[in-house]
Parts: sequence; C-alpha cells; structure tokens
Amino acid sequence: MAHLPEPVQNLITALERLPGIGPKSASRLAFYLLSAQDDLCTQLANSLISIKSATGLCKICYNITLSDRETCEICSIPERNTGSICVVEEPLDVLAIERTGGFSGRYHVLHGVLSPIEGIGPDDINIRPLIQRVMNENIREVIIATNPSMEGDATALYIKQQLGPNIRITRLARGLPVGGDLEYADQNTLLRALAGRQEID
Amino acid sequence: MAHLPEPVQNLITALERLPGIGPKSASRLAFYLLSAQDDLCTQLANSLISIKSATGLCKICYNITLSDRETCEICSIPERNTGSICVVEEPLDVLAIERTGGFSGRYHVLHGVLSPIEGIGPDDINIRPLIQRVMNENIREVIIATNPSMEGDATALYIKQQLGPNIRITRLARGLPVGGDLEYADQNTLLRALAGRQEID
Repeated sequence: MAHLPEPVQNLITALERLPGIGPKSASRLAFYLLSAQDDLCTQLANSLISIKSATGLCKICYNITLSDRETCEICSIPERNTGSICVVEEPLDVLAIERTGGFSGRYHVLHGVLSPIEGIGPDDINIRPLIQRVMNENIREVIIATNPSMEGDATALYIKQQLGPNIRITRLARGLPVGGDLEYADQNTLLRALAGRQEID
Repeated sequence: MAHLPEPVQNLITALERLPGIGPKSASRLAFYLLSAQDDLCTQLANSLISIKSATGLCKICYNITLSDRETCEICSIPERNTGSICVVEEPLDVLAIERTGGFSGRYHVLHGVLSPIEGIGPDDINIRPLIQRVMNENIREVIIATNPSMEGDATALYIKQQLGPNIRITRLARGLPVGGDLEYADQNTLLRALAGRQEID
C-alpha cells in the first residue's frame, strides 16, 4: 500500500491528538490545509506558537488572561460585586455564564474537577486558593457552578465541607432545560425538576 | 460581556476557517490546546509550517509527494502497470483505491472537478496533462474514478469526449453498497443497480 509523504503524515498525527478529531477527519483537515491558501497554515501556526507564551492565569480567579497582566478582564472591573464568587470548572464556563448577563460577581476557575478514577485530588485543582480567597476577602456567597455530573457534584460537596457553615453556598438549579420537552427528559432530570418545583408567582 | 484574550481569540478565528469546525468546536479546541502539553502546540505548528514547503506534486500524476522528489511513491514503482490510468479528484482518493488493493496501474489526480456553478473549467483542473499522458504513453485503459456526483459525471463525460474513441474508458460501477440495505437505498442508486445487474456466475 502507498504511504503518505512524511510531512503530511506528521500533520495528520498531530491533528489526531486533538479531541473529537479521528483519523478520517485528521486526514481531511490535512489535505484541506495542503490545498488551502498559504496564509491559513501560517495564521494557524503563529496563533499556536503565541497562545502559550502570550497568555497566563489571572492572579485572583485563575481565568485566562494576557501574560503581561496581573488580573483578568473581569477581575479588573471595579464595578463587579466582589462579595460573591461563582466557581466554575473551566475558563469556557466563565464565558457561558457571562453570556447570560445574570451574574455580576467574580469567578473562580478550578481548572478541573475532583476525580478519584483519574487520580485528581483537591491539590490538583484550584480549591485551596478558593478557600484562601473566601477567608481573606469579604465574601457573602459562593455559587458552585461545576457541571451537573458526578464529579461536579463531588467537587461541590467537597468545597462546601471545606468552607464551613458560616457562608452561603449555592449550586445551580437542576430541572427541565428551557424549550425542552418533558417527554424526552431523562428520569434523573425529571426527578430533580419535581424536587425543585417552585411556587408560581 | 467579557471578551477572550486576543491570542486565544486569534487561535479560535484561525481554527474556525477549517472545514467542519464551527465557533463552538473552535473554542473547545483552543482551550484544549491552551491546557494541553506544551509539545502539542509546537508539534502542530511545526507540521503546519513544513507541510507547504516540504511537499510538492508528482510530475507524472500530480499526487502529493516530497518536494525534493520528481515523482510520487506510486509512479516510482517500476512494477506498476503503466498501461492503465485511474483518474481521481483528490489525493485522498488515491489512498482509498490503494487500500482496496484492486488496482495495479498508475493514477492521475485532477485536483478538482468541472463545476460551471463554481466557475471551474477544464483549464482549472489537470485534464490537459491527462490527455498529454494518454497521447505520449502507451495507455490501454483509463478508469475514471471521479465521485458519483453530477460534477463527477460531467467531468468523466468531458474526459471521454476529449480522449476520443480509440481507447478503453471505464467508470466505477454504481449500485448497492456492500453491507447496505436495499430498503434504505435511494431511488437513483437502486435504478443504477438494476440497470447494471450482472449474471450470477
């Protein structure tokens, strides 16, 4: 069987390491890049090279920020409510919550969740800096917005235990997604929606 | 609303230019690359930079080859049957046919198909070099393996007209895909399968 030229094979191998990209997609992308305009390869390569060196983590919330800044865009806004912290797993979750416009406090990015199976313990994610923040700053509420998964729940529970009873700790509501169909909701979601039912006002 | 740091946004913009990658996948990939091992970004960037400079087209069949070689791997094998040419649209199609092990001749890569809608005429793809090859070499058969689409068919017909009646010109068979289900076959495929029915031997 014929083999691909080495540079093409190398690109396919590198692309296959990305999540959600299998051997077929990788070779499609590689051949697309081969015949694409010259600037696409250059633009991608340059962005890839600069991404690690030009970005860093916010000293306050561990969100992604420019490497020459101490704090991220959100922590730099003095108008934001500093009394409430929303704890999320990943920087993308910050964007998702910001898009809703429903939260005016600051964030704390854990960069992961507790997962005994994968060997991720409390010291592998940013839980200790969160506890420090809550002790040092005047925090009234911690909203735990980890994913509604087993690991997300375990992480929320662990954080609650660590923070103690003197602070309001909440978790995002579970229930039917807006625009969804009751018929297609899974059993657990429906159970949580029932348990969390609210008065019509 | 908060914005992403510029280097991250640049990477997302570059990734969005790839086929099949929308804004959501692009930001997922970008954040994956941000937190991935350092060598992944470097490996990808290096492969991207070298792919254009290190590869070129085979002087005989226009398949992808190393830039310091005249001919591709397949054209360099003296044992290959030089009397038959398989015409394909893209370099990936060469690999697909090679994988079957059912063809021992050489290829000719058109790098596209005729498409009046997109303004692609006979001079925009490698049809003229194919006709030259057929005139100069001792070719007995041309197998046209363009895609079974309207453009692929039009290209096949055009090539047949250009090559004239003195040479055997064939097209890949249409019919039911192996392992497929007659019930789910579309009308056109079934019609072609009926028209192309063969004696059981």
